[in-house]
Amino acid sequence: MSTIKEVAERAGVSVTTVSRTLNNRGYISQSMRERIQRAMDELNYQPNEIARSLSFQHTRMIGVLVPDSVNPFFSEVIDYLARNLTVRGYKMLLYVASGTGDTAPDYVAMLRSNQVDGIIVALRSQLIESEIRDLPVVSFETLQTGRIPTVLCDNLQGGRLAAQELLDTGCIHPLMVGGRHATQNIPAFERFNGYREAIAAAGLEPRVHEINEDEWERDYRIPAHQALEHYPDTDGIFCTSDVIASYVMQEVLRLGKRVPEDVRIVGFNDVQLPYLSAIPMTSVHQPLDRMCATAVDCLLAQINGEEYHSDLLFPVELTRRASTRGYHDEVLP
Amino acid sequence: MSTIKEVAERAGVSVTTVSRTLNNRGYISQSMRERIQRAMDELNYQPNEIARSLSFQHTRMIGVLVPDSVNPFFSEVIDYLARNLTVRGYKMLLYVASGTGDTAPDYVAMLRSNQVDGIIVALRSQLIESEIRDLPVVSFETLQTGRIPTVLCDNLQGGRLAAQELLDTGCIHPLMVGGRHATQNIPAFERFNGYREAIAAAGLEPRVHEINEDEWERDYRIPAHQALEHYPDTDGIFCTSDVIASYVMQEVLRLGKRVPEDVRIVGFNDVQLPYLSAIPMTSVHQPLDRMCATAVDCLLAQINGEEYHSDLLFPVELTRRASTRGYHDEVLP
Repeated sequence: MSTIKEVAERAGVSVTTVSRTLNNRGYISQSMRERIQRAMDELNYQPNEIARSLSFQHTRMIGVLVPDSVNPFFSEVIDYLARNLTVRGYKMLLYVASGTGDTAPDYVAMLRSNQVDGIIVALRSQLIESEIRDLPVVSFETLQTGRIPTVLCDNLQGGRLAAQELLDTGCIHPLMVGGRHATQNIPAFERFNGYREAIAAAGLEPRVHEINEDEWERDYRIPAHQALEHYPDTDGIFCTSDVIASYVMQEVLRLGKRVPEDVRIVGFNDVQLPYLSAIPMTSVHQPLDRMCATAVDCLLAQINGEEYHSDLLFPVELTRRASTRGYHDEVLP
Repeated sequence: MSTIKEVAERAGVSVTTVSRTLNNRGYISQSMRERIQRAMDELNYQPNEIARSLSFQHTRMIGVLVPDSVNPFFSEVIDYLARNLTVRGYKMLLYVASGTGDTAPDYVAMLRSNQVDGIIVALRSQLIESEIRDLPVVSFETLQTGRIPTVLCDNLQGGRLAAQELLDTGCIHPLMVGGRHATQNIPAFERFNGYREAIAAAGLEPRVHEINEDEWERDYRIPAHQALEHYPDTDGIFCTSDVIASYVMQEVLRLGKRVPEDVRIVGFNDVQLPYLSAIPMTSVHQPLDRMCATAVDCLLAQINGEEYHSDLLFPVELTRRASTRGYHDEVLP
């Protein structure tokens, strides 16, 4: 880690001038500012971190790291986090990692230099312990290093509930279409285990068709087509996300089959897509509102040096809709 | 506007102590900080604004104001703005106004105190000229005061294209289902005019069913039901958003009608929902990628004191899918 003295030497100015620049004291010319900025960049010097540790100042800004703001799951997470932070008097500095090629350590460095009081991370990549140091962090549905609290839903139970719904509605050739990532720190993997366990317990074959989500860039028409081609007798499908389930439903209808009469479909997350779907979709519901409130509470407790003992694992429920039960249960609100 | 002297007087401390607190210089006790903060709050004093105008420092933070991060239109806007800002070395301070009860002036004040270099506003409410003062601002698909540049799509042409698609696919009883807001600064109103004009030019009756979007809190099942009940002979529907179109398609299928054989459906925005729809949906496409890049370019030009002359009005196109054309045109990518 560079020191303010090294920055001053490289920029050819006094330590006082660097300090005045960092603290916005007095007039510093634009060219001087740029010279000092260049020296700081070259030395990878992070000024605000120092200023912060000197002054103990809280900025009341929270960094939020998401891989994607377009996926309905993350857009709902952003919404709930924003509301909870606003109510608590905090603001959200949002980083969307999609397509930028940045890694998690890059983001942590950027957030540090913006003096955030803490971060909530929902990125797939691992944070580096040495980057985080004393920064308060809460992880959201991704497994980070041991000391970072992680807010999770009960993914294992979700897989079981989805399988049970297919069994309860009479499926005898159920299929699971599941998204996989190259990285292994996604607790959603547990959905596979819950599904396999419940289907095997019913004496049926736990068929699974895996989609490499990183390969398909959010357009799962081809993998949905391949899954149905490979298992043509399928009469019920559990998909590990509502996005995948939407493409699967599209493909089932395109093949001239009926939902739910010929094929029952269950999604996961229960955010937007299931109730906006042309045929309303049964889905495993995560209590995202409470999960986000808890993530914020847990982070603010760390920031304020308080103990936090509430449970970070949330139960899931199945929301039954027309894609497994038909329209007869549907009533307008 | 209060002065630092007034703050010092109210807090019963010296101007130097207030200044040291504002600039994070030296040690200030927590109780002293709180006393000064209280005085600043009572006087509505905005310290960073002063520090900023003194130092000409750029924070490379841009405030982004959206009414909602869950609606796919705004989640895509957030995504594109985030990418464009990241590429240009800027960060996004995101404010989601939904459900917080805050007004646009509140947000501008908050953003000012966080020293953003400028803001991009997609809120429905009007910004107040006196609040904005010299802050660089770009408006996105909302009409703000005269001097604020506004990035828009050609909503009038969008209404015409949608009407023409219904006419081209043989509709003789077309209907428009349109969202209305209490506020009048949404250029999307032009979609009504484009539709009416094209339908009347074809010698048909321009039926319009209006939905008060503020009343229904994003669940349009009842208004969709009412529209179809009121116009039972409808054979084609243009909806002013993909969200409304999704609920309308759901209701059409629930009534046992076929899409597109019995009822053709056209949405607007062409973000996520149309290609995730169980029956892929024809929609008026806004070039959100280019619109967001332009909003960022235009804002950074203001920040850097440069002229900006590129066009801020973007043409729209119709993306034809199964909801008007059936599956025969669909090929997997």
